[in-house]
Amino acid sequence: MKALYLSAEGPELRTDYPSPDRPGGQALIRLDLAGICSTDLELIKGYYDFQGVLGHEFVGTVEQCDDPRWLGRRVVGSINLGCRQCRECASSGPEHCPHRQVLGIVGHDGAFAELLTLPEHNLLAVPDAVTDEQAVFTEPLAAALRIRDQIRARPSDRVAVVGPGRLGRLIAQVLALDGADVTLLGRRAWEPADAAGSWSLSLGIVDEAADNSFDRVVEATGNEAGMAHSLRLVRPRGTLVLKSTFAGSATVDLTKLVVSEIRVIGSRCGPFEPALRLLERDSIDVTSMIHGSYPLSEALAALEHAGRPGVLKILLTP
Amino acid sequence: MKALYLSAEGPELRTDYPSPDRPGGQALIRLDLAGICSTDLELIKGYYDFQGVLGHEFVGTVEQCDDPRWLGRRVVGSINLGCRQCRECASSGPEHCPHRQVLGIVGHDGAFAELLTLPEHNLLAVPDAVTDEQAVFTEPLAAALRIRDQIRARPSDRVAVVGPGRLGRLIAQVLALDGADVTLLGRRAWEPADAAGSWSLSLGIVDEAADNSFDRVVEATGNEAGMAHSLRLVRPRGTLVLKSTFAGSATVDLTKLVVSEIRVIGSRCGPFEPALRLLERDSIDVTSMIHGSYPLSEALAALEHAGRPGVLKILLTP
Repeated sequence: MKALYLSAEGPELRTDYPSPDRPGGQALIRLDLAGICSTDLELIKGYYDFQGVLGHEFVGTVEQCDDPRWLGRRVVGSINLGCRQCRECASSGPEHCPHRQVLGIVGHDGAFAELLTLPEHNLLAVPDAVTDEQAVFTEPLAAALRIRDQIRARPSDRVAVVGPGRLGRLIAQVLALDGADVTLLGRRAWEPADAAGSWSLSLGIVDEAADNSFDRVVEATGNEAGMAHSLRLVRPRGTLVLKSTFAGSATVDLTKLVVSEIRVIGSRCGPFEPALRLLERDSIDVTSMIHGSYPLSEALAALEHAGRPGVLKILLTP
Repeated sequence: MKALYLSAEGPELRTDYPSPDRPGGQALIRLDLAGICSTDLELIKGYYDFQGVLGHEFVGTVEQCDDPRWLGRRVVGSINLGCRQCRECASSGPEHCPHRQVLGIVGHDGAFAELLTLPEHNLLAVPDAVTDEQAVFTEPLAAALRIRDQIRARPSDRVAVVGPGRLGRLIAQVLALDGADVTLLGRRAWEPADAAGSWSLSLGIVDEAADNSFDRVVEATGNEAGMAHSLRLVRPRGTLVLKSTFAGSATVDLTKLVVSEIRVIGSRCGPFEPALRLLERDSIDVTSMIHGSYPLSEALAALEHAGRPGVLKILLTP
């Protein structure tokens, strides 16, 4: 089958990649649509030690499974595969299992292929009203929603999202759902095309935003400069959510963190069910973020496109 | 009067320092006993921009005041003086007022002198059952208690305090109050004298403590190595409290912070009332931490003593 494979030499398009074996309890899923995420681009840069098929944002159709109710269903799937034996799995799920695999990220082939496998208990059926182009955003939208699992966000909060990329725009929309004043902060002046898809959020330039001017700040750049700005912007006793994975260590102003009693929270994977409900209700605009679509046979060109500055979601079709 | 004054050239003992003017609303307090804190030693190193009389841990007797009920009372006092005009002062008190003064730290002469001033609303009467040697620990004990204001701590939590210094030992006792398993982690093997004052806490060596082995970790060293260990020790979804002020920036493993969804909370000043109640009930042992006492006239020797490795509380008498 066709698959975008990451080896130590970099990403390569394989046309002869073996179709995955389906272990008991897992479903074999035929890809309908996949999305390229910044994590995929980081994996390619070699920041993490993964070799295998890339991709963890997908919607597909179940082709083989144990439970016949899944057969032929259109599904999305949560991406963490826990050992189901350890204390973490028992108490809070697979996300922090020390032995976990992660679809297309750790030890389990991903979704940039014609076929993939996932445990049946990871699957969620996609409601008919949700298109493939919406459903493929379920995973990053769930990640954005994770913030609402973790912090108390009040409608009267002044909120900033630093980094108006793929994930930042989902986060900003999610945090604005309850009427909060959310400002999306970028490095450059906003283009009209960008501002058009701004969902009545405030738009700003991070260099021009005042110190201590936000109750909550979400760092969605994953770089040290973005982190420094985020910490600068958050008010005393405010909350800073780190939503983008950092490649390694960064220098952090711990003096402000302590003296101003800032709360910093790392945030990763989130709940799929509410993400699907929001997509079904059309509460979050995702389709305006689609900047291109490529067949798997042109996956390398798709990766190059996704890596250009200012480009949002690039999709892959089988 | 005698005062330990910090100038740009360093600390000096002044015998001719002018007695403070008492502004309306403030009390003039005659020192009974003061304590040397690591923050005083950091101020001397020049990490912060303060010139004036040092000292913020004290117990004293009110000599002049507006409200006659304070006259002759033995008092301790909270150390932040807010502007009482701004949004911060109105909503959450003076601790984060952007215009605040802080006794012996920011813009207000401190307690290493025969006389000091503080607003009357900062004062708390010391119960008769609390000795001066206990009362002088009210401020750092309040700072330790601040952690309980900020995080949910459960009796079944595995808790580590990294840094068995003056503040670390108060924090460990406070976090053990509800029966939690608290481990005090130092860099070196424990001396019998140290272990004696260990209040049935577990004692350990930080290098030997396993990754991800604590639900809550309190960083009480204020140095980068202590921070790195603390982040290493806290389990996924666990909480890391930064209790010691860092002098500037530090390199932090943000990858773990995000991927393991760690919660990091800066923590500073805390509530005096419960600190005094704990001292009155003799729930916290502070007197075994007193390693020396000097008159103000020997304050420079006292500072030198307080700076030696392993030395805990050094007191100053008028």
